[in-house]
Amino acid sequence: MFEKLRYITSGESHGRALVCTIDGIPSDLPVSETDIGKDLARRQKGHGRGGRMKIETDSAQILSGVRHGMTLGSPIALLIENRDWANWEEIMNPDTKYARRAAKLEKGAPVTRPRPGHADLSGALKYGHRDLRNVLERSSARETAARVAVGAVARKFLSEFGIHVGSYVTEIGGIKSAVDGTNVSSLFKTAETSSVRCADKKAEQKIINKIDKAMKEGDTLGGVFEVIVTGVPAGLGSYSQWDRRLNAKLAYSLMSIQAIKGVEVGLGFGVSKTPGSGVMDEIYYSKSAPRSAPAAGGFYRKTNNAGGIEGGVSNGMPIVVRAAMKPIPTLRSPLSSVDINTKKKFKAAYERSDVCAVPAASVIGEAVTAIAIADSFLDKFGGDSMEEIKRNYKGYLKQLERF
Amino acid sequence: MFEKLRYITSGESHGRALVCTIDGIPSDLPVSETDIGKDLARRQKGHGRGGRMKIETDSAQILSGVRHGMTLGSPIALLIENRDWANWEEIMNPDTKYARRAAKLEKGAPVTRPRPGHADLSGALKYGHRDLRNVLERSSARETAARVAVGAVARKFLSEFGIHVGSYVTEIGGIKSAVDGTNVSSLFKTAETSSVRCADKKAEQKIINKIDKAMKEGDTLGGVFEVIVTGVPAGLGSYSQWDRRLNAKLAYSLMSIQAIKGVEVGLGFGVSKTPGSGVMDEIYYSKSAPRSAPAAGGFYRKTNNAGGIEGGVSNGMPIVVRAAMKPIPTLRSPLSSVDINTKKKFKAAYERSDVCAVPAASVIGEAVTAIAIADSFLDKFGGDSMEEIKRNYKGYLKQLERF
Amino acid sequence: MFEKLRYITSGESHGRALVCTIDGIPSDLPVSETDIGKDLARRQKGHGRGGRMKIETDSAQILSGVRHGMTLGSPIALLIENRDWANWEEIMNPDTKYARRAAKLEKGAPVTRPRPGHADLSGALKYGHRDLRNVLERSSARETAARVAVGAVARKFLSEFGIHVGSYVTEIGGIKSAVDGTNVSSLFKTAETSSVRCADKKAEQKIINKIDKAMKEGDTLGGVFEVIVTGVPAGLGSYSQWDRRLNAKLAYSLMSIQAIKGVEVGLGFGVSKTPGSGVMDEIYYSKSAPRSAPAAGGFYRKTNNAGGIEGGVSNGMPIVVRAAMKPIPTLRSPLSSVDINTKKKFKAAYERSDVCAVPAASVIGEAVTAIAIADSFLDKFGGDSMEEIKRNYKGYLKQLERF
Amino acid sequence: MFEKLRYITSGESHGRALVCTIDGIPSDLPVSETDIGKDLARRQKGHGRGGRMKIETDSAQILSGVRHGMTLGSPIALLIENRDWANWEEIMNPDTKYARRAAKLEKGAPVTRPRPGHADLSGALKYGHRDLRNVLERSSARETAARVAVGAVARKFLSEFGIHVGSYVTEIGGIKSAVDGTNVSSLFKTAETSSVRCADKKAEQKIINKIDKAMKEGDTLGGVFEVIVTGVPAGLGSYSQWDRRLNAKLAYSLMSIQAIKGVEVGLGFGVSKTPGSGVMDEIYYSKSAPRSAPAAGGFYRKTNNAGGIEGGVSNGMPIVVRAAMKPIPTLRSPLSSVDINTKKKFKAAYERSDVCAVPAASVIGEAVTAIAIADSFLDKFGGDSMEEIKRNYKGYLKQLERF
Repeated sequence: MFEKLRYITSGESHGRALVCTIDGIPSDLPVSETDIGKDLARRQKGHGRGGRMKIETDSAQILSGVRHGMTLGSPIALLIENRDWANWEEIMNPDTKYARRAAKLEKGAPVTRPRPGHADLSGALKYGHRDLRNVLERSSARETAARVAVGAVARKFLSEFGIHVGSYVTEIGGIKSAVDGTNVSSLFKTAETSSVRCADKKAEQKIINKIDKAMKEGDTLGGVFEVIVTGVPAGLGSYSQWDRRLNAKLAYSLMSIQAIKGVEVGLGFGVSKTPGSGVMDEIYYSKSAPRSAPAAGGFYRKTNNAGGIEGGVSNGMPIVVRAAMKPIPTLRSPLSSVDINTKKKFKAAYERSDVCAVPAASVIGEAVTAIAIADSFLDKFGGDSMEEIKRNYKGYLKQLERF
Repeated sequence: MFEKLRYITSGESHGRALVCTIDGIPSDLPVSETDIGKDLARRQKGHGRGGRMKIETDSAQILSGVRHGMTLGSPIALLIENRDWANWEEIMNPDTKYARRAAKLEKGAPVTRPRPGHADLSGALKYGHRDLRNVLERSSARETAARVAVGAVARKFLSEFGIHVGSYVTEIGGIKSAVDGTNVSSLFKTAETSSVRCADKKAEQKIINKIDKAMKEGDTLGGVFEVIVTGVPAGLGSYSQWDRRLNAKLAYSLMSIQAIKGVEVGLGFGVSKTPGSGVMDEIYYSKSAPRSAPAAGGFYRKTNNAGGIEGGVSNGMPIVVRAAMKPIPTLRSPLSSVDINTKKKFKAAYERSDVCAVPAASVIGEAVTAIAIADSFLDKFGGDSMEEIKRNYKGYLKQLERF
Repeated sequence: MFEKLRYITSGESHGRALVCTIDGIPSDLPVSETDIGKDLARRQKGHGRGGRMKIETDSAQILSGVRHGMTLGSPIALLIENRDWANWEEIMNPDTKYARRAAKLEKGAPVTRPRPGHADLSGALKYGHRDLRNVLERSSARETAARVAVGAVARKFLSEFGIHVGSYVTEIGGIKSAVDGTNVSSLFKTAETSSVRCADKKAEQKIINKIDKAMKEGDTLGGVFEVIVTGVPAGLGSYSQWDRRLNAKLAYSLMSIQAIKGVEVGLGFGVSKTPGSGVMDEIYYSKSAPRSAPAAGGFYRKTNNAGGIEGGVSNGMPIVVRAAMKPIPTLRSPLSSVDINTKKKFKAAYERSDVCAVPAASVIGEAVTAIAIADSFLDKFGGDSMEEIKRNYKGYLKQLERF
Repeated sequence: MFEKLRYITSGESHGRALVCTIDGIPSDLPVSETDIGKDLARRQKGHGRGGRMKIETDSAQILSGVRHGMTLGSPIALLIENRDWANWEEIMNPDTKYARRAAKLEKGAPVTRPRPGHADLSGALKYGHRDLRNVLERSSARETAARVAVGAVARKFLSEFGIHVGSYVTEIGGIKSAVDGTNVSSLFKTAETSSVRCADKKAEQKIINKIDKAMKEGDTLGGVFEVIVTGVPAGLGSYSQWDRRLNAKLAYSLMSIQAIKGVEVGLGFGVSKTPGSGVMDEIYYSKSAPRSAPAAGGFYRKTNNAGGIEGGVSNGMPIVVRAAMKPIPTLRSPLSSVDINTKKKFKAAYERSDVCAVPAASVIGEAVTAIAIADSFLDKFGGDSMEEIKRNYKGYLKQLERF
């Protein structure tokens, strides 16, 4: 857990509610349920999503930490109710008396068939559960709604300093999107209007087709998304100790998202293919540095292979990270598994119609990135109120100018 | 920082010594300076390493926490002396009186030319340093020797439970190594004898040639290495909270290594190209599970695309992680930069003869992986002495068998 | 924050609700809202409590982490609603639109008169608040209800290992209770039936009289309570690093309760008055150790001046800690203060009728003590399910027997 | 562990050296071995100390993090060599080959007789040690030298902001010192010249006599010391979450010192005896606030019963904490114990001539208090260089003035 900006999420997929508590947000930041709701809605979009996403429209209720639209400096608790709770109460109620009622229901029967690719089996072995529901309810990606809510608060905080976090999908099912990264805000705008968060119209159509084809075949698709953070000043993170490195914190955050199997900063795995002479971002200087690098005391780069981080420290260029999401493991084409009670092999297919969740993962990626950046920002600039942090930040920017 | 197994490294590249303190190792683990020295030596090998690596042969002195060859349960401090300290004393001495002496020496002059690709500039902006030596001495990859020392202790701990950590280089300068991952121990053995930690003899020669060519051209090369951990039981890590996920801890650890720009688990970025039906590792069961997955209660897989982790929890298959290291930024072919005092452009080339440090990074990768696994192991099994931990572990293995 | 058992509380005194999330409780622990409700009710009792305590009867709703009466191993979220929310909605609603409505209400006016002894002024200076309500709503001791809820879960966990946490009041307003500590369970029983948690019937009456007198005089009273934990095995905590010491964790926990100004372990400040020969608890051995020290391998003491902890490690004797609570700062007899806007002196008296909250603090003390002990227990014994932890614990007890 | 200012100590009492690493000190703070040496020397003084203290004169070697007298922003490692190592090498060497040599020496025989009042027995049960030396070498108060060294760096940091940490002994063996706390700096000066750190000349003589008497009787004495921190601005710590409270962090720190059994803030346990009307520090205001409370925006108090902390937040008045130290457990008058091998009772007396270590504990108390305050200061003001932190701090002071 980070220390300046701490958060814990809780809640099961079909439980009463998801709850998240965020500790460390300063006072006098404007935060509203509407702000948070917008990001929750963005997470629910995407071509290739099936039933559940369409039923629910998540909204977060602020239970604490905000008064009359402004943060108090005290911890913020957010509640995202399960709109389908009425249908799940017998199955999931915390009260022991519901156990008997659940036992009479078909969907109350213990789940004993672990799905490959999920935590079902490992989680059951770890916690000693014989009803896999006790695992899958928490390991489910439903939890990411809570993280998006936390991220919305972090994003709001960052926006007060001109720091913006956006994302787009770069690849789904092996189809790459060809984008020109020079105009980040137009890139984000285009992605926002795309049902697959793709900023390349040609690739977009191919991706949609691929998703439709996978749906017909009962298969699922993974992909890659990229998160870009603009307006980050030089000096976040540190090389001084392994766990203070900004890139390491970002990798920790992104890899903690359900189904993520790879994380890159800047050129990422591409660094293996390019010699050193082509990888390093040469250093330039101008009193009026370009808008893309406003906060590095006039120093800037014309390339950004480093993805905005050198030696674990932000260098004033946009932070660029990517993550690879595996295909949804629950698919209609049958996979071989073993019942945990009978130890008999079974071949199971699932009804679930989600084919691809990469666009949603992209939004979740924004959230965890925003949290990690906000934590590092608070770590560097201290402060308990927006006024104080802004003053500290301004002082630092002047220090950079004088450097 | 992890909580069960905490470590802090300290020390500058040309300072008196590197020091690392490790807190959380149980009592009665055999640990020797020889054990640690072996890993330190492995880190110093590799075709394409230049001058310094050959001069120094690192060795660690155990200052505390071990008595007569056995750990005490108290924190372990390790000291790695700088063998070249005599040549650097004026420049780096903590005492203020050396400042004047250093000022008279050529190499005592403030470093004002930041190297692209290093923390030099970002670090100077962050900490307000006007002598870049104050940054580069700590941001240097020299610090990784301390981590390898810590890792050697973690490795020793894991080996008592039949858990082994090895690595090999999969790619350098774009040349991939084609290996058959089925026999991990022979893979490691071959890699160990290779000057580029490559287990594919054909690729090895091409890589060596590529390094030699880069050396002639004054360029440098990056690459990718893979760390495999065998013998890990199912149930390390957790899906319950974002920061307890094993894959996230591994990504945090690997990305914290100097120059790492990408991290993958299992299939990694390959998940984008393969449909769900080809990604998931189907589940099988046999009372006598194959040796590759000894600790998952008889459940096993025939494939390991997940890299041994599903839902943030180890599943009993080998843990497989990869990391991409960028080329060494200090190269002979000139890069454009700006003097921090004059703000004038300069084109600098460096004498440094290191061309490729990927084999060394591979060994460092083993170290940080071993630490993260040991932390998660201690987290799951508790215990203060090897006897207690072994008993707890055995009890769990029996529980898995009965599952 | 502790790492094995982490918890964050949130919520304002007159906000919608208090929320607490607990992360790290293993699977298969029976937990119910009734269990938690019992401790919440115990916190609300006590002679000398005024209006609010009588209006509300707190109850906690389990939002996550428990299914059909058993913990899942996933984080537990608890919600304690503010029963008086209807009367406070305009004043405290997170939505900005309520600001205007609140402005029209008398109790919606900014609070500008800081109360000595509260966080009002320091908090306002820190966070830049000009309405002291923004401070006092969170700094209020109302928050302790959330901690009692967390503590109820920790207590439940400990009870599965025969560890019991109780408390009684030893002093209020300078009147000391004379108790014979030899029979702890009868001590607790008597305290439980006393309106001032006093186990000495003579002192009880004097204390009640003193409270009644203070009430008439518009004054308030502080006091001291003692928490005793029986059944704790030898070996929790550690001397190996400063922050792993059990007594230090207990002091951290107890001093974090609102209004606590002193913490003692065992003889406490009494150690200054007694020479070494009278302070140390001599060591005895018997294969059938007395019931008071069941888990130290046969070793026991006839005295317990150490309060069950030597060198930061539990020694098998009951853990005994005490804390001193200052009188409630809000009193009817006028105190001098300064308006933060006008900077004019004022002498304010308050309506509030609470005179003494020491009995409540005693229950809160139990809660935070239970949490700290549970954290240290989990740290030593590891494990993810009650079955695993019990097995590990039994193994350790046998190890102690063989010692 | 705190997060902004982290430190780990390591080292056994008769091992090669004590080592401490401090992570989080900003750049450009002047730090010298001389500064640290002064505090190490202060720790070694005191009437009633026996042999060892006189033999050794501790000094710390800076191994990293400081260059030419100024901190680099990177972690600082300090080494305190054991001057008596030559006499202990066989007994304590980390190398296994020394085991045989040690076995031949009288002092190499396993220690099997646990001393009441020490961690000997509990530690052995916890870690499974059968040679109590494996416990006592680390649990020894020798470790506090490392903490004093860390504290010296923290103190240096604080002094740059006009924050001063001092201490004196208020009570030894039940003899109280009557001091007038109004002139803190003269109080400290007097204490500094006293062999028992006592600022009351009459009490001083009585204390010395009492110590001499205890020495003759083979007994030992405990006592109480008070640490006062002046110049602390209002606003350190927070009421927002239990573990962010300044008083809780101080209690954590002080209680973690070897042999401490009680901790108080301000009036401490005295709050039980005084009604609320006499406990609260009334609030006053003056544009030119008295020197005793310079950093609370003109608000000040005429009393300081709160010890400078209300609601977990510093209020601008001096921080006042006290701790009670138990008598040294190793005494000449025989105590009853049990041999861990034979399980036979023995009555042992010790040669050790230390009678009272309270003056030393007072210096150690300063160290851990300085560390906790520095951590909270860094937490509030952020910053990576002294320049940045000073600018942030000045900005806050102006904000307070305008409040």
